[in-house]
This record gives sequence, C-alpha cells and structure tokens, in this order.
Amino acid sequence: MTSLPEKAAQNLAAVREKKPLIHNITNYVVMNYTANALLAMGASPVMAHARNEVEDMVSFAGALVINIGTLEDDWIASMTTAGKKASELKTPIILDPVGSGATTLRTNAAKTIIDETRLSVIRGNASEILSLRHEDSKTKGVDSIHSVDEAAQTATILAQELKTSLAITGPVDLITDGSRVIRVANGHPLMGYVTGTGCTATVTIGAFLAVDDDPASATATALAFFGLAGEVAGGKADAPGSFMIQMLDALYTITPESLREGCKIEAN
Amino acid sequence: MTSLPEKAAQNLAAVREKKPLIHNITNYVVMNYTANALLAMGASPVMAHARNEVEDMVSFAGALVINIGTLEDDWIASMTTAGKKASELKTPIILDPVGSGATTLRTNAAKTIIDETRLSVIRGNASEILSLRHEDSKTKGVDSIHSVDEAAQTATILAQELKTSLAITGPVDLITDGSRVIRVANGHPLMGYVTGTGCTATVTIGAFLAVDDDPASATATALAFFGLAGEVAGGKADAPGSFMIQMLDALYTITPESLREGCKIEAN
Amino acid sequence: MTSLPEKAAQNLAAVREKKPLIHNITNYVVMNYTANALLAMGASPVMAHARNEVEDMVSFAGALVINIGTLEDDWIASMTTAGKKASELKTPIILDPVGSGATTLRTNAAKTIIDETRLSVIRGNASEILSLRHEDSKTKGVDSIHSVDEAAQTATILAQELKTSLAITGPVDLITDGSRVIRVANGHPLMGYVTGTGCTATVTIGAFLAVDDDPASATATALAFFGLAGEVAGGKADAPGSFMIQMLDALYTITPESLREGCKIEAN
Repeated sequence: MTSLPEKAAQNLAAVREKKPLIHNITNYVVMNYTANALLAMGASPVMAHARNEVEDMVSFAGALVINIGTLEDDWIASMTTAGKKASELKTPIILDPVGSGATTLRTNAAKTIIDETRLSVIRGNASEILSLRHEDSKTKGVDSIHSVDEAAQTATILAQELKTSLAITGPVDLITDGSRVIRVANGHPLMGYVTGTGCTATVTIGAFLAVDDDPASATATALAFFGLAGEVAGGKADAPGSFMIQMLDALYTITPESLREGCKIEAN
Repeated sequence: MTSLPEKAAQNLAAVREKKPLIHNITNYVVMNYTANALLAMGASPVMAHARNEVEDMVSFAGALVINIGTLEDDWIASMTTAGKKASELKTPIILDPVGSGATTLRTNAAKTIIDETRLSVIRGNASEILSLRHEDSKTKGVDSIHSVDEAAQTATILAQELKTSLAITGPVDLITDGSRVIRVANGHPLMGYVTGTGCTATVTIGAFLAVDDDPASATATALAFFGLAGEVAGGKADAPGSFMIQMLDALYTITPESLREGCKIEAN
Repeated sequence: MTSLPEKAAQNLAAVREKKPLIHNITNYVVMNYTANALLAMGASPVMAHARNEVEDMVSFAGALVINIGTLEDDWIASMTTAGKKASELKTPIILDPVGSGATTLRTNAAKTIIDETRLSVIRGNASEILSLRHEDSKTKGVDSIHSVDEAAQTATILAQELKTSLAITGPVDLITDGSRVIRVANGHPLMGYVTGTGCTATVTIGAFLAVDDDPASATATALAFFGLAGEVAGGKADAPGSFMIQMLDALYTITPESLREGCKIEAN
C-alpha cells in the first residue's frame, strides 16, 4: 500500500497535471481567496450559486465544495440542488459547516445538506462538527471531551452515524472515515489570523478529492499540504497580511517532493 | 481622567485580550479585507446578513457594524432587524452610510437605520454625513462649509440632532458626541488608493466600541490606531497593493505603547 | 493620426487626471480586486447592483462595466436596467461574458444584454466570445479555428454582427471593431494563476473607454497597459500571491512614458 506521504506527493502532482475544475458554492468573504488558492495549487476554480445553473456547472466539475458561511435561504436550495446532481454523478462533495451550532439557520442547513446529498467529507472545527450529530447520537458534546483518545472515538462514531469522512481541524487535525483515524500536525499559528483559513483548507481537500478516490487519504494529504504551506509562509512572514500572500505563494511553489518530506501525517 | 493617548493604548490592549466578536452586515467589496483587519488587530469577525439569523448572531457580539455599500432592499430589513436586537441588548452599533447622498436608496436606508436603531457612532466622509440631516436641520451643506471651525460646529449640531456620535474622516478626522470635539491627524495618502479604507476604519471603531463605553473616546482612539497603521505601512510600501498588505501587518504589530506614542489626537 | 503607443500614454494620463467614476455590476469573486485595480490606476470605482439604484448611479459614471460571473436572475434585470440608462446617456458600456457558453443561464444573459443595450466592447476568451454568435452566424466554432488569420476573420465578422468592438484575450490579445484588427502582445504567464485577471482587464478597458471615444483604441491601449503591469509584476514576483499584489503596484507606478515605450501593439 502506498504510504500517506507518498500519496500526498502523488495527489499534489495529479492536481497540477489534471487541473480539476472545483465548483464552489461558498460564502462572500472567502470567494476571492479560495479561488486564488485553488489556482495557485494548480486546480481550476469556478464559483456559481444560481439555482438555475448549478446543475449545469457541477456536471463539469471534479469536486463540489459547499460552504455555509454568509448563508441565506435561497442559497440552501442551490446547495442541495447542486449536491443532489453531484451525488447522482458520483462527483465527490465536501461540506464546510461554517458556524453550525451558532445559529439555527446554519445548523439546520448543514443537517439538510447532509440528509439530501451523498457527502465524501465534512470539514470543520470541533464545535461545528459536533453540532451535526443527531439527537440520539452516542457522541459527547465538545465540553465533555477531555483527551485526544476521546476526541478520536467521538469522531469515529459520528463519521459512522453521518456516513461520511470527517476532518476536525485545529493545531492537530483529526481525520476519520469511521474506521481509520489519521492525524496531521502541519500548520502555523498565523493561520488563525487570516480569514477563511478553514474554508481554504476545505477547498484544498476538494481539489485532492478530485484526484484521489479515498476520502480519508485525500483529506489527510490535502491538510498536510495546506498546513505545510502555512509553515513555509510562516518562515517568510511574521504578520497576517504578508503571511496570507506567502500562503498563496507556497501553494504554488511547494513541490510533490518537498510535500513528501515535510508532511506530518500519523495514521493509527 | 485618562488621557486619550493612554486610553488608545488601553483600548488596543483590551481588544487583544478580550477578542470581541464583531458582527458585520456589510458590503461585498470589503468583507474579506475588513474581516482580515479585525483578525489582525486581535478581534473576532463574523459576517452574517440573513434576516433569519442576524438576531441569533448579534446576541453573541460585542459590537454590530452596519455598512450600506452594495446595498439592496432585503439587506435593509436585516440591518434594522439586527440593529433593533442590538439596541435592546445595549450592544454598541456603528453605521457606515457608504454612498448616502449619492442615491435615494442609500440615503433613505441610512435614515431608516438611524430612526429604528440606537446608534453609538456614524462614520463617513463629509458629504455622506451631511446627507443624513433632517429637512429642517440647522446644519449647512458641504459646499457652504468654509473653515474647520464651521465644520466642527456643523458636526456638533448634527450629532445632537441625530443623537449619536459622529466621525467625519478625511486628512484630519473630526469626532464629536455633540458636546466634545476631537481631531485625529494620523493617516497616509496611500489610504485613498485602497478600496474599503473607510469601511475598515469603521470596523476598527466597532472593535474599540466593544471595549470602551464612551463612543467618542472609542472612535477617536480607533481612528488614531487605524491612521497610525497607515503611517507604518506607508513607511514600508510606496504603492497601493503592497500598502494594503502592510496595513494588515501594522494592525497586528503596533503595540499599545507605540500607539500611545504615535497617536495624534487633539481634544478641545 | 496619433499612433497607438502615443494614444496609450495619453489615455493613461487622462485616467489619472480625470479620475473617471467606473460603475461596476460584477461578480462577488473579483469585486475587491477590480475596485483596487481601478483605484491603483487612478480611476474611481463604484460597485452597485440594486435595481432601484443602478440608474441613479450610472448617471454619474464615465463608463459601465457589466460582468456576469456569479450571476443570478435578479442581477440580469439590474444589468439591463443600468445598461439601458447608460445607452440613453451614451455612456460607454463594456460586457464581460464570464462563463458564457458554459451554462444556459450565462449564455442567455449575455445575449439579452447584447440585445437590450448599446455596448461599446465585449471582452472575453475565445470560447466565451464565440458563444455569443447568432444561430445563423457566419463565424466558426472555437475548435474549427486553426490559424491567427482565421481567428481575426471570425472576430471581424462577429463584431459586425453584434455591432460592437470585441476583445478576445489570451497570450496575444485580438481587438477588432469590425474593420480594424489590432493585436496586443503584452502579458505574463502568472496572470493565469490569479483569479479575475480577465475581469480586471475588463475594468481597465472600462477606465480607458471613459477617456477615449474610439472603442478599439481604448481597448487595445488598456490591454497593453494591463499586460505591461503583468510584465512589471512578473519581474518582481515569481508566485501568484506576490504577483497579484505587484500587479496592483504596477498599475499605480507605470508612467505614461513607460507605457508608450513598453506597449506591444500591432495594428493592421
């Protein structure tokens, strides 16, 4: 079996070679930055959200990214319409449940998308991901998780319940498909000072899903690549404005070989 | 009484310590940049505009920023809904009446928001601010103001009429709560070559309002901080692209101490 | 007759002197970047899309930019409303048919705007431009064009049919008003790694249309300026993040004289 560092190098090379079209239905705040990130890494972004064109657009796509930041009702309908079409076509879908748990609109929207589409991956922070569990879930709330082992166990149960892979990102990212658990330790503290860092991690996973059939492997290698870009940027910039520009540069300049050497992925 | 330079240092330190959530209902053009500016200075931005979630969202916020750039009718309803909730909760609100006076839609929207919510501050340029006066106002039009003393007198009367503090920004910013008049001379000419500079000044005031109960003091110290960031950036960049990135860096790197030393605030 | 390099220098100087207001109804992805580009080159951008204010706003404008990226139905009505008013006022209009040919919504929207307004210029890539032809057009499809001469002939016929100037941008840009054909060879490969490069070329043409009555001359000189900015940026940055910032800087720093020397325009 290919090791995950080797797979990371292969996936990055494949994105640059195939330049997959990534269809994004995403929030206003990050549209420009995530489009630039996708271009920099070698993918081909399109942003389109009108209900009467998303089925056309997603038909060309290698992956669909659904992100519920700056949400409103009309957009939810577009997200499910695009998501159903992608599900039919077996095009991978990743959901970023921005703010789920904070407002009823967002929590309900995320659950609707989960119910009506066939997701490959959901990426969020711990509270966003845990807000997605059913009422009768066996998982615990964020405040009742006291160790990394409990977090892994909770995520594994939830991935099984939601029938999708999960990525809970933070200083160390936790990825699970309901059986395997993978941890990624790449990253840099300045990533928390740039808006849409999480959203950009999500589109990176989207690009890797377009070239890797295994959602857990695609997700872990994408997060290692994205975190390594943060490390490279953090070596060149010491404040958030310069850092966010260096991040884009790093997504372009990191080679498959340097990713293989630099990724900090641990599977168990 | 604490001097304004000392207050500036205290406010910046408090923003970095408390990381207040700033709820923004703002225009599409500046969402990314103002979110990045808030993160860089140490605050925590959220952009949410759907009428069925703004009351939820503003309940968590330390301040509400309403900005009428790229306005449309649906958004006005969300702005007043959020504004009424914030008013109930005594959460400070700042209005940026972008383009008021230029189109009927914007002038009327700004006046509606003023009537229906309890604003702490309105920040705009001279023509935007003066477009807000009532028909029977004692204030003069922009073209009939011929001296800084006349400008101060006009702003003072208007602040009393509108029952809010006002910030009229320009090469020298004029702040008044209807009794005090404060002037801030920090800034740099390249700020006029970056889109959303005014909007970013507004969110900076929003962050300071979340930690300072006195709107005039919060506004003046925020504008001194923002203008100083322009001066620091102007020392490192000589064209607008690099300048706007250096601005974000400066919002992160300026210390309370350097702000106390560098602010150019004059109260009388 | 003034040579095109001389005209380029004159147009850039005129934009900086007159600071024309450019009204944009454009997509969410590029709003911030194109506003910053317009400011950097010396023009004055405004973004406004509400149907009940676009007529007010376009009345102040030196040119109207219509861009159909991130389109939805409501926006089409605003685009035609603004376009009709601009047509009445003889204010130049440029259309960027982003994604025309890819989805029915966009192709139909572009054709509606062409039919209902008096366009000065349409700028797109080859497949977008060719998607605009009528069913009975004499022009060929993209795949059947095998030489630069065929491309020029096709564009000329299409410009006559659509009664507007056309700019087909790529490594070498082709501009025609239906009689003249002009080619512009300025540019840099990294421009393809920044989102909204085409859209930013379009707003640059918009600014030049506001100061030059000849659409073909305005378009060719604007594209030479924009491409030269790419060349200058490419001399300073070797990855997309830094490059897009250097582009903004170059739009500000390039002088009329350096544009006259650096432009690669060939008319025949």
